[in-house]
Amino acid sequence: MESDRLEAFSDGVFAVAITLLALDLAVPGPGHGRLGDLLRHHLPSFAAFAVSFLTIGIIWVNHHTLFKNFARIDRTLLFLNLLLLFFVVCIPFGTSTFAAYLPLGQFDASLATAIYQGVFEGMSLSFGILFWWAIRHEHLKIALTPAAARTAVIRFGIGNVGYIAAVGIACRVDYGAPAVISSGLCPMCCLPLMR
Amino acid sequence: MESDRLEAFSDGVFAVAITLLALDLAVPGPGHGRLGDLLRHHLPSFAAFAVSFLTIGIIWVNHHTLFKNFARIDRTLLFLNLLLLFFVVCIPFGTSTFAAYLPLGQFDASLATAIYQGVFEGMSLSFGILFWWAIRHEHLKIALTPAAARTAVIRFGIGNVGYIAAVGIACRVDYGAPAVISSGLCPMCCLPLMR
Amino acid sequence: MESDRLEAFSDGVFAVAITLLALDLAVPGPGHGRLGDLLRHHLPSFAAFAVSFLTIGIIWVNHHTLFKNFARIDRTLLFLNLLLLFFVVCIPFGTSTFAAYLPLGQFDASLATAIYQGVFEGMSLSFGILFWWAIRHEHLKIALTPAAARTAVIRFGIGNVGYIAAVGIACRVDYGAPAVISSGLCPMCCLPLMR
Amino acid sequence: MESDRLEAFSDGVFAVAITLLALDLAVPGPGHGRLGDLLRHHLPSFAAFAVSFLTIGIIWVNHHTLFKNFARIDRTLLFLNLLLLFFVVCIPFGTSTFAAYLPLGQFDASLATAIYQGVFEGMSLSFGILFWWAIRHEHLKIALTPAAARTAVIRFGIGNVGYIAAVGIACRVDYGAPAVISSGLCPMCCLPLMR
Repeated sequence: MESDRLEAFSDGVFAVAITLLALDLAVPGPGHGRLGDLLRHHLPSFAAFAVSFLTIGIIWVNHHTLFKNFARIDRTLLFLNLLLLFFVVCIPFGTSTFAAYLPLGQFDASLATAIYQGVFEGMSLSFGILFWWAIRHEHLKIALTPAAARTAVIRFGIGNVGYIAAVGIACRVDYGAPAVISSGLCPMCCLPLMR
Repeated sequence: MESDRLEAFSDGVFAVAITLLALDLAVPGPGHGRLGDLLRHHLPSFAAFAVSFLTIGIIWVNHHTLFKNFARIDRTLLFLNLLLLFFVVCIPFGTSTFAAYLPLGQFDASLATAIYQGVFEGMSLSFGILFWWAIRHEHLKIALTPAAARTAVIRFGIGNVGYIAAVGIACRVDYGAPAVISSGLCPMCCLPLMR
Repeated sequence: MESDRLEAFSDGVFAVAITLLALDLAVPGPGHGRLGDLLRHHLPSFAAFAVSFLTIGIIWVNHHTLFKNFARIDRTLLFLNLLLLFFVVCIPFGTSTFAAYLPLGQFDASLATAIYQGVFEGMSLSFGILFWWAIRHEHLKIALTPAAARTAVIRFGIGNVGYIAAVGIACRVDYGAPAVISSGLCPMCCLPLMR
Repeated sequence: MESDRLEAFSDGVFAVAITLLALDLAVPGPGHGRLGDLLRHHLPSFAAFAVSFLTIGIIWVNHHTLFKNFARIDRTLLFLNLLLLFFVVCIPFGTSTFAAYLPLGQFDASLATAIYQGVFEGMSLSFGILFWWAIRHEHLKIALTPAAARTAVIRFGIGNVGYIAAVGIACRVDYGAPAVISSGLCPMCCLPLMR
């Protein structure tokens, strides 16, 4: 079974999700104050949009790199890919909730940040499972050396521990900045898994 | 006539529909109460989203499996595929109506559930017609054995009777849970039709 | 220059436009009356959705048939295709305006119908220009016989005169039904242009 | 590494962005005045929609032309392409903000115009960087002659200086027309870069 259609469908989902992110940039129409002020109050939305765009973009690059190396696809991979897309599709929701509730501070900001991080963590974990399945069942055209596989697992593990820690911190401290920063970490740690 | 473009167009529709589902997850912005409460009241949306995502995902897997085996495409198949996509495109509507009216209980909840089920039933039926047409007019690369075709028809019949029964139950009992559960049945019963 | 990417981009636009149509099906949430009544008042939206879905579907089938026969693509064709996509993209707007203003009757209903028809007419005309350019500049793999080309031109002319007449009728009579009916005519008249 | 999937993903983003533009055409439903008046007050939206549609369309044609000539893709190009898509995805936001705030005149109109222009400028610059990287690192199948490369750079430079000037003018004069006109200039200046 070839991966053409899996890639086309996934590309479609990535493309729609990354474009829907921008819907949330819309400022209220005239009559709600000066545009400059509206944009200033909207800053968390722009920051969250940029982070989410980058994250989806990097996961797409990783997805592209991984499936390029796939020799064959089975039904399990189709469903593991659906699991990944499930979290991709949730990113616009996580992003807009985060942007809306971060400025409130206190528990609501922490909860919104934890949701945002949780979606990224879910995406990261499902990508990891996909990757692990591919290595385990020898779907790759060029098998990883045991050393490369070990490095990948270690890096992935560290990245995800960091992620879960970020969720924990976000729930504790009443401040979203570390969460936004850590959001950028996960795809970075996935990125070098492959060449 | 090759099925490349039919698949590309269908993948686009599946991808947009599955991503639009998530638009409905959005909770109201600050000022409508605590985020935790908003999310709790929003639980039916999350459940309906998960069921609909899984259903579209499984139908996509089935569509993928079916068209992979198609030797040729004719204009009738293009239109039967459009019929299937018609119901796919209605799923976000069915999902959001179901999620919005389920908590009300009484007749409105039953009606919303029946619409939700009806959309799934329409999708299932149009997939069945597509499948039957493909067998009937020998569009498949590897023809099904008579035994396999008979098993497929029986399974499909049971699945759809179950579906229609679920619509009936939903209209009677003032409760959406069996509907949500049965929603997961249809794609399951389509799934084993092919290998 | 091959038509692969032109088709992929067009398929994307067709797929998004046909799926966005369904966004307009959403009924207001609880608190606006009984669901059954809301759905009944929403009937024009469902009818307009069905007509627009069918029209986009048929134009996609025509587009598919036309480009399958293209031997080569030049930059003019890319822009003629963009013109067609311009009107495809306007269909959800025309559909929702039509559905919202038809029940009002009087001038507003006529105007909304004329806009709806105008978008279909624009789509039909730009498809006609694309088709004419392809014949004229010998982009087709299998050239049409002069007789077939003449038939195509006559059919296309009748279809479009009918369309413009429908716009005129819609502006006069305070009633949308003939418009909805005639909306179905155009793609029908384009359909037999090719095999 | 082949450019198939990069093109498919980009086509998806272009297609969604160009179709989402039309969401902003929606006029308020009945009860907000006569449809004719609503449409008249909505004219900036229609003008901005047409300009943005044309701009995305032309950039897609340029993207198509550029990647058709690519012999190979590396990871840097994937990210430069993401940068271009970032600005493509922002166009619906820039368009709707421009259309909403232009009629207000004064500072808000200028700011909205500057944002709109800024998004186009960002798209133009990132396309320029992509183009420059492709020439520089010899990714093109047919290398440009030094004369052609020089012409391209000069044209691109003039186009972008004109763009930045347009942003400046928009911020000064309390009027959006030159901005809308100049918006059409950039893709025009990119267009002849390639054959």
